[in-house]
Amino acid sequence: MLIVQKFGGTSVGDLDRIQNVAQRVARTKAAGNDVVVVVSAMSGETNKLIGYAEHFSKNPRREDMDMLLSSGERVTAALLSIALNEMGHPAVSMSGRKAGIVTDEVHTKARIEVIDPSAMQNELQKGKIVVVAGFQGVTPEGNVTTLGRGGSDLSAVAIAGALGADLCEIYTDVPGIFTTDPRIEPKAKKLEKISYDEMLELASLGAKVLQNRSVELAKKLDVNLVTRSSFSEEEGTLITKEENIMEKPLVSGIALDKNQARVSLMGVKDRPGIASDIFNALAEANVNVDMIIQNKAHNGKTNIDFTVPKTDLSDAKNVVAKFVDNNEVEAESYNEAICKVSVVGVGMKSHSGVAAKAFSTMAKENININMISTSEIKISMVIDEKYGELAVRSLHSAYELDK
Amino acid sequence: MLIVQKFGGTSVGDLDRIQNVAQRVARTKAAGNDVVVVVSAMSGETNKLIGYAEHFSKNPRREDMDMLLSSGERVTAALLSIALNEMGHPAVSMSGRKAGIVTDEVHTKARIEVIDPSAMQNELQKGKIVVVAGFQGVTPEGNVTTLGRGGSDLSAVAIAGALGADLCEIYTDVPGIFTTDPRIEPKAKKLEKISYDEMLELASLGAKVLQNRSVELAKKLDVNLVTRSSFSEEEGTLITKEENIMEKPLVSGIALDKNQARVSLMGVKDRPGIASDIFNALAEANVNVDMIIQNKAHNGKTNIDFTVPKTDLSDAKNVVAKFVDNNEVEAESYNEAICKVSVVGVGMKSHSGVAAKAFSTMAKENININMISTSEIKISMVIDEKYGELAVRSLHSAYELDK
Repeated sequence: MLIVQKFGGTSVGDLDRIQNVAQRVARTKAAGNDVVVVVSAMSGETNKLIGYAEHFSKNPRREDMDMLLSSGERVTAALLSIALNEMGHPAVSMSGRKAGIVTDEVHTKARIEVIDPSAMQNELQKGKIVVVAGFQGVTPEGNVTTLGRGGSDLSAVAIAGALGADLCEIYTDVPGIFTTDPRIEPKAKKLEKISYDEMLELASLGAKVLQNRSVELAKKLDVNLVTRSSFSEEEGTLITKEENIMEKPLVSGIALDKNQARVSLMGVKDRPGIASDIFNALAEANVNVDMIIQNKAHNGKTNIDFTVPKTDLSDAKNVVAKFVDNNEVEAESYNEAICKVSVVGVGMKSHSGVAAKAFSTMAKENININMISTSEIKISMVIDEKYGELAVRSLHSAYELDK
Repeated sequence: MLIVQKFGGTSVGDLDRIQNVAQRVARTKAAGNDVVVVVSAMSGETNKLIGYAEHFSKNPRREDMDMLLSSGERVTAALLSIALNEMGHPAVSMSGRKAGIVTDEVHTKARIEVIDPSAMQNELQKGKIVVVAGFQGVTPEGNVTTLGRGGSDLSAVAIAGALGADLCEIYTDVPGIFTTDPRIEPKAKKLEKISYDEMLELASLGAKVLQNRSVELAKKLDVNLVTRSSFSEEEGTLITKEENIMEKPLVSGIALDKNQARVSLMGVKDRPGIASDIFNALAEANVNVDMIIQNKAHNGKTNIDFTVPKTDLSDAKNVVAKFVDNNEVEAESYNEAICKVSVVGVGMKSHSGVAAKAFSTMAKENININMISTSEIKISMVIDEKYGELAVRSLHSAYELDK
């Protein structure tokens, strides 16, 4: 097999941990696999460098930031290659450039455009382990870029895609994806497999193991992604396409998002385009609107409710104030004491009754549902914040996820 | 003017010092000059990275070491560019690769082969300050290399040559080149100008401000080199070609080298090729032989005396032992209590009596001269170590270097 293994900052956080990573990589190689390793900077390094830059400027030139920040991953890549060679496993370290990673020109937040895997393939054919500095690439003109938050995961997924790797393993400090947050429900089980779409829903709902950009890219490139712990031998969770999951569970996981606030607009003038005007204004202010409910108009007035991340609430208030000033909205109210509970599962595409069970479970616990939104594989409910954990545990049990 | 300014590790040793460097660069630019800056890693960084590598391997792969060590200069270059931009002086940071520095493939000790200055020229034409990461380049195939000890000086000189710069300023923590070591002779004067050849003699005699590789390259590329302090505004010393020095002083400086040991071989068999055999064997053992004296043979036997660095003495002893074992040398003796005092000056090419004055000065002080060697611009004398400082002061005064 050809396996891409990615180790994040915590996994390579000090020299002993890099040595541990080297041993794990060596075992994978010794088991007969070809291995490409993608590494982050040692934890703390990137923040240290950002601190240095902030000493000089609040708004440093992005090209300089990329030159600065791309150095941390080079260090880790070189050290891991040195460790592997010392253990008798021939290895080579490569910068993002050398690995053939070409990005657009959006410095500090670049997108990978194309990967020329020939240098990596060349070394793999010689039997070498290839260690690539993650998080970085170069523009077509050859200027260093970095990929933004979660960038090393993107490097790993893109490389796995370009090489046609059998697996892309993302090592972190958690053992995989769970049916729900084990801190809320100790009976939560680690999932063996999950589809890209379920993972995308769970990730956007607060499962912080993987960023959506990486899962989306894995889906696009058809890369089998595994998330697992670098601190144990435990098998992780495979994130793959739905067709690869034989027994599709009805529900895969329950997610809780407490970073939500509800905005209620009352007496909204019911003219054509009013909703469009409001939500365009919110988008321009970079307010991330999630669920939206609009009542049927009555007497030329309607009510609009929506949720935004708590962190966006003050921006949202500024936008709303303008519509109140224009007399297009009569009154507004805000509620930060809410949360969103979501049930995610590809099985609900083909089974009815999944949503009904969610609602009846809430009813049994006397939890009032304020807002509901559904997608093909997700049911989200906004409820009072204080019931969040209870709702998660009840739903986890109702869908028998602890079995 | 187009000026290349190089700042070493001490000059960029912390964030405040980088800020100071930025101010100096900005002043040079504001005075109407085009400026290219070459920087080293912050002092301590390179040693830290070497320590990391040694944690994993006593003999790390050189390509990995280059990937590792080249990161430190990139950090400094990026930070200096950020500082300059913040001060309102548009600047760009460049890796060695981006600056067009192509080297041979001798990783960790690469030699610059060619520089394509077009990227630098392009930015200079836009009025920008160009900040280049020193100490590094790339092979023709694009693999990162480093240039070994003193590498950032070499980067600066080579860039100055490629750009046809008017000046290449090397900033260190000393104000320039002195007529002798001021710790020995407080009346030592800073030289305003000195020729490449004199500098080469002084450098090889222990003036540690500049490495000979850099001076040789400056001579070859006809680069006007200035060495000066980054911690004061004092003018430094210009190192230039002899023709540029109008009033050639008879003597420019006195150097003292205490890292010398004398090896005396007695009763050496006077067969053809014996000297060649001995010195070839020493060369193969990497023993750096300096002065050599061979007496006229008498009764088929001769005596050979030579000096070696004290650090090479034990290797030299091993080589000599073999000739003693073969009965080609009757006896050997070693003397570490010696030193070498040298008088350097281009003026002695055209003036007689310089050597005679050196010998008479020694005689006046009752200092016995053990060995003498002369070149076109240098007289070196081996004397007892204890007289070293006295000899330096006497010669400094005799040639009126304190005037």
